[in-house]
Amino acid sequence: METKFDKKDLTKKSENIADWYNDVIKLADVADYAETRGGMIIKPLGYALWESVQQVLDKQFKEDGIMNVYFPAFIPMSLFEKEKEHIKGFAPELFMIKSIGDEDLLDPYVLRPTSEAIIDKALSKWIKSYRDLPYKINQWCNIFRAEKRTYYFLRTTEFLWQEGHTSFRTAQETLDMTLKALNWYKDFYEQYFAISGYVGLKSQQEKFAGAKNTYTIEMVAPNGKSIQMCTSHDLGDNFAKVFNIQYIDENGEKQYVYQNSFGLSTRSLGCLILAHGDDFGLILPPKVAPIQIVILPIITDNDNKEIIQFSENIYKQLSSIGIKAKLDVDFKHTLGYRINEWEIKGVPLRLEVGQRELDNNVVSAVRRDNFEKSNLDIKDILNTIPELLLNIQNDLLQKSRKLKNDLTIDVSDYNEFKKAINDGKFVRAFWCEDEQCEEAIKQETKASNRCLELDRIESNESGECIYCHKKAKRRWLFAKSY
Amino acid sequence: METKFDKKDLTKKSENIADWYNDVIKLADVADYAETRGGMIIKPLGYALWESVQQVLDKQFKEDGIMNVYFPAFIPMSLFEKEKEHIKGFAPELFMIKSIGDEDLLDPYVLRPTSEAIIDKALSKWIKSYRDLPYKINQWCNIFRAEKRTYYFLRTTEFLWQEGHTSFRTAQETLDMTLKALNWYKDFYEQYFAISGYVGLKSQQEKFAGAKNTYTIEMVAPNGKSIQMCTSHDLGDNFAKVFNIQYIDENGEKQYVYQNSFGLSTRSLGCLILAHGDDFGLILPPKVAPIQIVILPIITDNDNKEIIQFSENIYKQLSSIGIKAKLDVDFKHTLGYRINEWEIKGVPLRLEVGQRELDNNVVSAVRRDNFEKSNLDIKDILNTIPELLLNIQNDLLQKSRKLKNDLTIDVSDYNEFKKAINDGKFVRAFWCEDEQCEEAIKQETKASNRCLELDRIESNESGECIYCHKKAKRRWLFAKSY
Repeated sequence: METKFDKKDLTKKSENIADWYNDVIKLADVADYAETRGGMIIKPLGYALWESVQQVLDKQFKEDGIMNVYFPAFIPMSLFEKEKEHIKGFAPELFMIKSIGDEDLLDPYVLRPTSEAIIDKALSKWIKSYRDLPYKINQWCNIFRAEKRTYYFLRTTEFLWQEGHTSFRTAQETLDMTLKALNWYKDFYEQYFAISGYVGLKSQQEKFAGAKNTYTIEMVAPNGKSIQMCTSHDLGDNFAKVFNIQYIDENGEKQYVYQNSFGLSTRSLGCLILAHGDDFGLILPPKVAPIQIVILPIITDNDNKEIIQFSENIYKQLSSIGIKAKLDVDFKHTLGYRINEWEIKGVPLRLEVGQRELDNNVVSAVRRDNFEKSNLDIKDILNTIPELLLNIQNDLLQKSRKLKNDLTIDVSDYNEFKKAINDGKFVRAFWCEDEQCEEAIKQETKASNRCLELDRIESNESGECIYCHKKAKRRWLFAKSY
Repeated sequence: METKFDKKDLTKKSENIADWYNDVIKLADVADYAETRGGMIIKPLGYALWESVQQVLDKQFKEDGIMNVYFPAFIPMSLFEKEKEHIKGFAPELFMIKSIGDEDLLDPYVLRPTSEAIIDKALSKWIKSYRDLPYKINQWCNIFRAEKRTYYFLRTTEFLWQEGHTSFRTAQETLDMTLKALNWYKDFYEQYFAISGYVGLKSQQEKFAGAKNTYTIEMVAPNGKSIQMCTSHDLGDNFAKVFNIQYIDENGEKQYVYQNSFGLSTRSLGCLILAHGDDFGLILPPKVAPIQIVILPIITDNDNKEIIQFSENIYKQLSSIGIKAKLDVDFKHTLGYRINEWEIKGVPLRLEVGQRELDNNVVSAVRRDNFEKSNLDIKDILNTIPELLLNIQNDLLQKSRKLKNDLTIDVSDYNEFKKAINDGKFVRAFWCEDEQCEEAIKQETKASNRCLELDRIESNESGECIYCHKKAKRRWLFAKSY
């Protein structure tokens, strides 16, 4: 799959981030369009990134005693529509199987847009005693929600995700689990994807259809717009009552369970790409890069053999300590072409090995994130290179934190609010928590309510609503949706 | 999820294998029925077994340079029907999305029953030069094929599988790949699932719709029926011509690729369960058992603490060398109940630790497969227990080999053939390779042609067709389908 890459094919990120995003995904072979409306094909580089998500989160889930399962993608409509808010929220996006062969189905199948309904139906049979609780399961699967057109990873008709579903005896345990899952996501995004987002509570209008409360992490995109990176829902006993999930407690009495669900999808890959790429292509954080280092032997004359041996030795050393290195000996193309290729694919560190390096027993290292070049003594590379990778990882996170802070502004006046939104900012402002104000702000500014940061939930400041000037006690974050 | 297990709930395997199979899956918490026709829920124990399949095969694929990808589940009908044999073969089993919201789709979507069509459409864009070849990809995904009712794992409307899709320059490379994938499956089944099947070529009538040749591994079930455990298809250039997958060779000329696809599904778990279980429940081979050893402290009086400490010490020792052990301290239930539980769940080895064991510094080990009991000196368990697990693994494979051989019979007379099929045997017989005889045999005996063993493909014996008595040169395997 030879990418015919020409730098001029890549729109500059600073000039048009949406075009840049589509270009870079195509040129770096991350994904492609499919034949269907809103469809997407995840190519090898994209899927390898998804596997890095799976490895980290799946390990975390298992350590917490969460068990993987698999439920069918088909949910009978009669089940799906039981929770009234749930069906109302999802109805416009549903795909339906209405017949099998020539036979019309009396109870058509919904292709799962989320699995609460079918899982809860099973739990109502499976959970019998307090000894069965907590009951914690997760599935990795595909999800279907109709989209008119494809926005790679961010909005696609089918996407991949994990959905965790947990049941407890008490509301408190459920809230704890909801926040624990959110914290796993926060750690994952920070430690692996090097993205710092806003961790908070969704407003009642913006929450998951059927939940008591939804918690979210919102990413500040480089253009100041917001992307929901994951969610964790406190479902209370809403679904338990609808699906009759009851257990017998120690006293022989029937009780409803309290539930939580949490999900992170392939949308996360869109966040990763948007967060770190630049005008030269992707920039992948070392901890999740399928190739962490590319080694490029630079061949000029007939003295090739020694340079290649020298490069192979470096490759072997790095591989021996678990670094995912790639030795590029594809001499059919010019060095410039090959450098471009690895840059657009976002490989975190490039090692160049030519005659000069050979003579001096060094290797030339070029960081992808800032193009900083250093000469590394060959004797020390097993120390210096892991350190360089760690520095890249940390610097990317710092850069993400800085961008988030730089693009966020506190305002106390509605004109300021409107100006800031127009300037591509995240805005923190008092809101009276009345849905009418929230809706009016959305209509007038196109900015939606993104969340209330976790550490502000208990806050009790005193201010006035940015819109209606009535009394308000908490500052919420508003931004345009990406 | 407390299984209310009572031995009398489990049908005897020898008396009614179909009922036993359904009972054991339910009682061991492997899977459950879903609300939809042909639907199935894979519960934690079942999914853990599927993960063991994924781990082994995925590693094998990656070592061979096969890259994981993800294609949409929706395939436009216009693509799916391009290959005429393909659509003809799959038409009766297809689920269709005919509308989105109120809008009828002019080109309805097929829910993938296999992905050749959508993958090949993409390959026709992606593969350009001989330098792009070989191109080898794989995906782990769900698959939809309509079934009237659920046979756990063996026939379900939705199942999970991997499908590998590879493209090469030559027919020979493609055949090599087809057989390589088949061999991975053979090794997996033998080394991990401890199942020895027949590895062979499908007849032209029984091959995959659209393939040049299909290779298979057929399991001999304990009742002499046959289950197709996986397939690897030599697609020739059939799909390449239909989807116009061409590359430019070194001479600048356009050439069609040759292709192979190969798949193994959650049906493999049905084979695993059928192959080894007995009247007491599942028997899991140690290499794939999510719990390899259960340690049961036997508490009789007040001297509990020492016994539990002794058991914990065993647990820690075994865990330290990577053995998946479980310490069962659920004293709410009787010892007999707990033993039954672990037996039905198929845990390969049970360790009992009571006062006698403590006094003598031994542990009592009971093999699940043959109930053989041994006293192991506590000092040696890090040697003796891995050896015991290995013996169980090997003995299960030997037993599977023996069953296969015992249930297979060579016949040369059609009356013998019919009697053998009625007696629940696999039958090896000369066949003239004319489809009319194959079809007549099927109609008259209910036995279908299962395969021609690999080492008989080149054979050139001389015999006469079991049915029409015309000249025949190869002996094929026939059996009833499970």
